Amino acid sequence: MNQPEWLDESIPEAHPQYAEQAQARQDQLTKPPGSLGRLEEIAIQLAGLQQTAHPVVDPVQITLFAGDHGIAKDGVSAFDPVVTLQMMENFSNGGAAICVMSEEIGAELEVVDVGTRWQGAVPRAVRDERIAPGTANMRRQPAMTDEQFGAALTSGARAVDRAIEKNGTRVFIAGEMGIANTTAAAAVVGALLNKAAPGLVGPGTGHDASGVRRKAQAVDDTLALHRDQLGGAAALAAPWEAGRRVGGLELAAMTGAYIRCAQRGVVIVLDGFISGAAALLAERLRPGCRGWMILGHNSAEPGHHRIVAALGGRPLLEFNMRLGEGSGAATAVPLMRMACAIHNRMATFAEAGVTPEGQG
Amino acid sequence: MNQPEWLDESIPEAHPQYAEQAQARQDQLTKPPGSLGRLEEIAIQLAGLQQTAHPVVDPVQITLFAGDHGIAKDGVSAFDPVVTLQMMENFSNGGAAICVMSEEIGAELEVVDVGTRWQGAVPRAVRDERIAPGTANMRRQPAMTDEQFGAALTSGARAVDRAIEKNGTRVFIAGEMGIANTTAAAAVVGALLNKAAPGLVGPGTGHDASGVRRKAQAVDDTLALHRDQLGGAAALAAPWEAGRRVGGLELAAMTGAYIRCAQRGVVIVLDGFISGAAALLAERLRPGCRGWMILGHNSAEPGHHRIVAALGGRPLLEFNMRLGEGSGAATAVPLMRMACAIHNRMATFAEAGVTPEGQG
Repeated sequence: MNQPEWLDESIPEAHPQYAEQAQARQDQLTKPPGSLGRLEEIAIQLAGLQQTAHPVVDPVQITLFAGDHGIAKDGVSAFDPVVTLQMMENFSNGGAAICVMSEEIGAELEVVDVGTRWQGAVPRAVRDERIAPGTANMRRQPAMTDEQFGAALTSGARAVDRAIEKNGTRVFIAGEMGIANTTAAAAVVGALLNKAAPGLVGPGTGHDASGVRRKAQAVDDTLALHRDQLGGAAALAAPWEAGRRVGGLELAAMTGAYIRCAQRGVVIVLDGFISGAAALLAERLRPGCRGWMILGHNSAEPGHHRIVAALGGRPLLEFNMRLGEGSGAATAVPLMRMACAIHNRMATFAEAGVTPEGQG
Repeated sequence: MNQPEWLDESIPEAHPQYAEQAQARQDQLTKPPGSLGRLEEIAIQLAGLQQTAHPVVDPVQITLFAGDHGIAKDGVSAFDPVVTLQMMENFSNGGAAICVMSEEIGAELEVVDVGTRWQGAVPRAVRDERIAPGTANMRRQPAMTDEQFGAALTSGARAVDRAIEKNGTRVFIAGEMGIANTTAAAAVVGALLNKAAPGLVGPGTGHDASGVRRKAQAVDDTLALHRDQLGGAAALAAPWEAGRRVGGLELAAMTGAYIRCAQRGVVIVLDGFISGAAALLAERLRPGCRGWMILGHNSAEPGHHRIVAALGGRPLLEFNMRLGEGSGAATAVPLMRMACAIHNRMATFAEAGVTPEGQG
């Protein structure tokens, strides 16, 4: 396998000194220490990561990666893959949830086609980086070649570089669109954590019980095939093999984007199930990425809690969302902004002439 | 007792027809039905209450009521009451948490002194509606006379009328500031729900275990005295008696504001423990108020979950906050805005030419 060279670049760590300074400042603001709970924690975390006394959230970049999946032919999704193209048109025209959300939170939005099965020109506002016309059917063969997987990782990384170049992005959200991609994400998580499909597979964007069973069967068949081909579950738990054999082009691009964010010191807000699978893959490929991730929300997709347990941490929102597109992450952004506003703009006890607790 | 006449005005109900129309629209937006979880629920609830196809959050009014408590002399708070005045100065100068938050979310902020013990002129930007120099010590006598309690309710109601007059407020947040007011709130909840102090009393804005015990004792002594004076727990569960005997001036003003919001069709976002106690009191005084309330956050104050259970519903945020001032409610506002943006601005399947689920 020929891994892209940029993957080896180093990942900086949070700086404890800045986090400690931020904690000290929080304790001097005109409120009982700790009384703003997670708002305080977010500000302290960002201060440590950004190595600053004044943590910021903006500019926020949302990049949505679209791709199709060979396994979709096996009826694992409630939607037909033609919807991938229709939704790219919808993204292009500003009508999709993530378009409205990025406008609402004042984020930049880019949509990148890393491999839909569509053969014609991509819609107006979509960036064309198609690597393949969807993945191969992972139930029968690896979803991607080494080259395709590497190219998808690099496409994601380039999206981050492009965003930083354009506006100095400080917070990055990766969204996705791809019919059947909860199936691929479940397979990736199953491969990395060595779990079986039940407990990982849920309704996705809409499935009845028989649909969920069909999906679980597809995931279990897929994992069995590749474990067999590689000679065991441990070999499929190796992140490069897991990512290319049972992942997706958009999932790989998200993974590359997350690794690049960590390398370049950009804070990541995770979305739900597919985002979480990509995050787990990123951390396994390049340990240290996790430190740059904030968990945006707890997805309604049942397997998401296993990803959260594997990553560690507690999502900001519990909103029963399961759309993808980066929607849960985008919804959490105003909470992070609020945390920074409080941290940077509240008066201290000394500034306000207020008597701190116990000194009255 | 001489209750203010405005208390009898009628309270409108949510209109099922508009909620049903909103639900139908949500099911036509270019996403799997239900996949935006609570964002969908919020929009549908607001549409029903506001009787519109296009629910809105703005303008948002935050009104903070300040008052002092006779019981504070018994050492139930970690802060000295001089802090009430110092914090009014801080509100006036824009340095407090709620000032930063209201700026961050673009809300109007008003601070009303309904009864601090301060005798001089109130700080610059504070509105002077002082009814008494703090409440009487409820451990020995009723916190307020009937007239004082009625005046505090009316002060809160007038704040809502003023906000509507000024800018057509659609969402209202009541905040509070008053040393020892978690003690009064615990007593009100204990009186209304006929519970004892343990389970209702927590650290407030900062207390060690012995402080919490002292506070619990103060609440239990208070409840015992007034039950005794009235001839039983049932008589103290009557909301007027509970509110005036063991409440607070700022808590009563919040109660009056909530009732007035419901009467005038303004959506209420509840804050934490004191706000919840005022909400419970409002619903007991004028059943029907609850329908106009959205629970902003789950407070870290231990007794808050009992209030949530009594009100019904699920708070939007679980952020471990316990500051008061309306801070938890203000933090939830961007989530409600996101819900409305999605509802009003996303494309439908027909508009976008996207094939809905199961029709591919």
